[in-house]
Amino acid sequence: MDKALLHKKLPRETADKLAITVMEYCELLAGYTQTQGQMDRRYLTPEHKRTNNKIALLAQESHLHTWQDQAGNQWVRLQANQETNQRIILGSHTDTVPNGGKYDGILGVVAPLVLLKHFADNGVCFDFHVDVVGFGDEEGTRFGATLLGSSAISGKWKSKWRELVDENGVTLAQAMHSFGLDVSKVSEAQIDSNHVLAYLELHIEQGPVLEEKNLPISAVNGIAGARRFAITLEGKAGHAGTVPMGSRQDSLVAASQWIVELNKAAQNTITDEYPVLATVGKLEVYPGGVNVIPGSVGLSLDVRSINDSARDTFITDKLERLECLANAHGLRIELEETHTAQAVSCDTSFTEAMTEVVGLLTGTPLALSSGAGHDAMVLAEIVPTTMLFMRCEGGISHNPKESICTEDVSVSLSALTMFINEKVVI
Amino acid sequence: MDKALLHKKLPRETADKLAITVMEYCELLAGYTQTQGQMDRRYLTPEHKRTNNKIALLAQESHLHTWQDQAGNQWVRLQANQETNQRIILGSHTDTVPNGGKYDGILGVVAPLVLLKHFADNGVCFDFHVDVVGFGDEEGTRFGATLLGSSAISGKWKSKWRELVDENGVTLAQAMHSFGLDVSKVSEAQIDSNHVLAYLELHIEQGPVLEEKNLPISAVNGIAGARRFAITLEGKAGHAGTVPMGSRQDSLVAASQWIVELNKAAQNTITDEYPVLATVGKLEVYPGGVNVIPGSVGLSLDVRSINDSARDTFITDKLERLECLANAHGLRIELEETHTAQAVSCDTSFTEAMTEVVGLLTGTPLALSSGAGHDAMVLAEIVPTTMLFMRCEGGISHNPKESICTEDVSVSLSALTMFINEKVVI
Repeated sequence: MDKALLHKKLPRETADKLAITVMEYCELLAGYTQTQGQMDRRYLTPEHKRTNNKIALLAQESHLHTWQDQAGNQWVRLQANQETNQRIILGSHTDTVPNGGKYDGILGVVAPLVLLKHFADNGVCFDFHVDVVGFGDEEGTRFGATLLGSSAISGKWKSKWRELVDENGVTLAQAMHSFGLDVSKVSEAQIDSNHVLAYLELHIEQGPVLEEKNLPISAVNGIAGARRFAITLEGKAGHAGTVPMGSRQDSLVAASQWIVELNKAAQNTITDEYPVLATVGKLEVYPGGVNVIPGSVGLSLDVRSINDSARDTFITDKLERLECLANAHGLRIELEETHTAQAVSCDTSFTEAMTEVVGLLTGTPLALSSGAGHDAMVLAEIVPTTMLFMRCEGGISHNPKESICTEDVSVSLSALTMFINEKVVI
Repeated sequence: MDKALLHKKLPRETADKLAITVMEYCELLAGYTQTQGQMDRRYLTPEHKRTNNKIALLAQESHLHTWQDQAGNQWVRLQANQETNQRIILGSHTDTVPNGGKYDGILGVVAPLVLLKHFADNGVCFDFHVDVVGFGDEEGTRFGATLLGSSAISGKWKSKWRELVDENGVTLAQAMHSFGLDVSKVSEAQIDSNHVLAYLELHIEQGPVLEEKNLPISAVNGIAGARRFAITLEGKAGHAGTVPMGSRQDSLVAASQWIVELNKAAQNTITDEYPVLATVGKLEVYPGGVNVIPGSVGLSLDVRSINDSARDTFITDKLERLECLANAHGLRIELEETHTAQAVSCDTSFTEAMTEVVGLLTGTPLALSSGAGHDAMVLAEIVPTTMLFMRCEGGISHNPKESICTEDVSVSLSALTMFINEKVVI
């Protein structure tokens, strides 16, 4: 290992220069989209292939080792300075949602790639391999199921996924074949967790907290578990002018009352050890006429917390309350749980290490919890995992307005470097 | 005038027999629909023409005088027993909403038609003409503007209506031409209000009050005035998992809070002299993702009262409250008033007379106010006007489930007869 790199961080001017390259690569790869005029890159598409190829080419310029695994994930390796199986993995995903942004996912691939190129260009290597991985699917926007890439390397791939179908009727197995892969060999993508020292994922925060705190980065102590429900409240439609207020079974009034209570209850957890986030993001009224009392309302519920038990208690409580309200308004409830994911804790010692790094760089040793899902959730089940959050403008993601600044990338590169140099001990 | 008819009501068995005929005619005319499998009869269509022709034919069987006016309204006359210009008019509309019912409108044409046939068949006539009118348009479902038929006979036709366009791009002027009419002659449909003793409209209640009170009919003391608004609340979309509860500008939470308050305030007017009805019938959430905090909400507001001032005070109050809520949640409001109609009072003495008739027939001298608009609103501006409401199952209208019972029709026919015989004095 080049001892010249064992500073607390990259020299400032080096980090700044590399950050500009990261921004340029993000811009470049944003051109690989299946829908002109918007960012839209999905799993096993020609754009996915072009992205993998471009990442490999950029790595090869610096004589880094590259390969694509049997799930279509792209890998780059800075070889260890010795014969070893030990590796650390830095990565994130290369796919986007339709009409998404230029940084969600790809930043966590491009930033470590640029670092590895810098190390390689300067003859730096470590006692372990440093790998970068770009997962082909995390968002799940092509086949409905999410986290396909990280599931494949973690041995969590489900054989039934081969039958998943995209919006054009193409099965995942067919899409793999077109991509040059063989779905029956996906299991070969699985890595040996015994050789992985750490998985580290850099990702934009996708929330406003760092911006509000005026901080560029934070550590991440865990990823909230989400449960989602589809709820229908069935009342009775009627003429807005002829059904007296006292004779109504207005499903929207009941839904509104519940949304107000739900929001208030979630607001009340802000200062709890384990706050709960509750969101009704979707609400549809039937028949939806200006002069018709709402007969039924369909709505979604999304509840998250870093603590599953806090989340579940909240949900039980609120669903009981919904039943009371429905009874009071003479409504019928239909309820379906559409999604469940357990909360995931990051590796404690690595998260403490990253928090320390963040503190050294920013003056504020902050660790946030992630409300959004990430590949790190899957990796955390098999290897010591932690994350680094980077500020994004307005907390906006999954949107063309997604925006980051070069200065924050510079700090992130320094944090990754410090972490690799000082915190991963074999 | 045949003194034999000057009983308080038709002989019960006669009324019952005529009621069966009314039901048969309603069933028969329900076959005149432009959309197979549902009730859908719009202004100036071939089905409108067939309906007019059938009404005329049925009337002519009893040697009643018939004509169609220059607006496409169908008329039937029982000639007075003397040389006179004086007339009373009974009527309603022959058009329906798409996927509507078999009674809304047409009942108020068919029931008096059957009565007039009975009078004519039995050589009964009065000191004044008794006219039945079937207005070609009240619902406004073809050209957007409502109450076209009654506006034409009341001199309220607007010349700009000739340019209204239906969903197929046909102008009203063209539709009139195809129907065999000349839009430039619509003014000829106007009646001389000086010769009209009364306008009386029988209509299904379209609300649940008569059913709740277990009564077949009621008088109507007025028609509520409605004001409608289109409201947009613009907050900030965000990730349901990453934006803390305290940092949200959730437009749906604010809208919900307002809907709850609005409903409560309207509920509180139930025992007022002039109750107010307030309805949010339409609500749309953008972007509407399960895991996205609602960025904006578009909603409708419909407020009605028989007293314009009570209604307007309510609206001012609630819109002020909306502004407070929007400020508290950091939202922007867009507000557009999309519709205004003044409340209309029925003729006091005729309404008292009808209330008395209702009391004699049912034991309960009830007068309701109408929350829905009717042709009577337009006629009330030029001639003494009142209405008779008839119970409909579940208060349902504008729906294939619209349903009435023959017994109630029988009571309605008795009420119309008593009213004509005893209450209209020249």
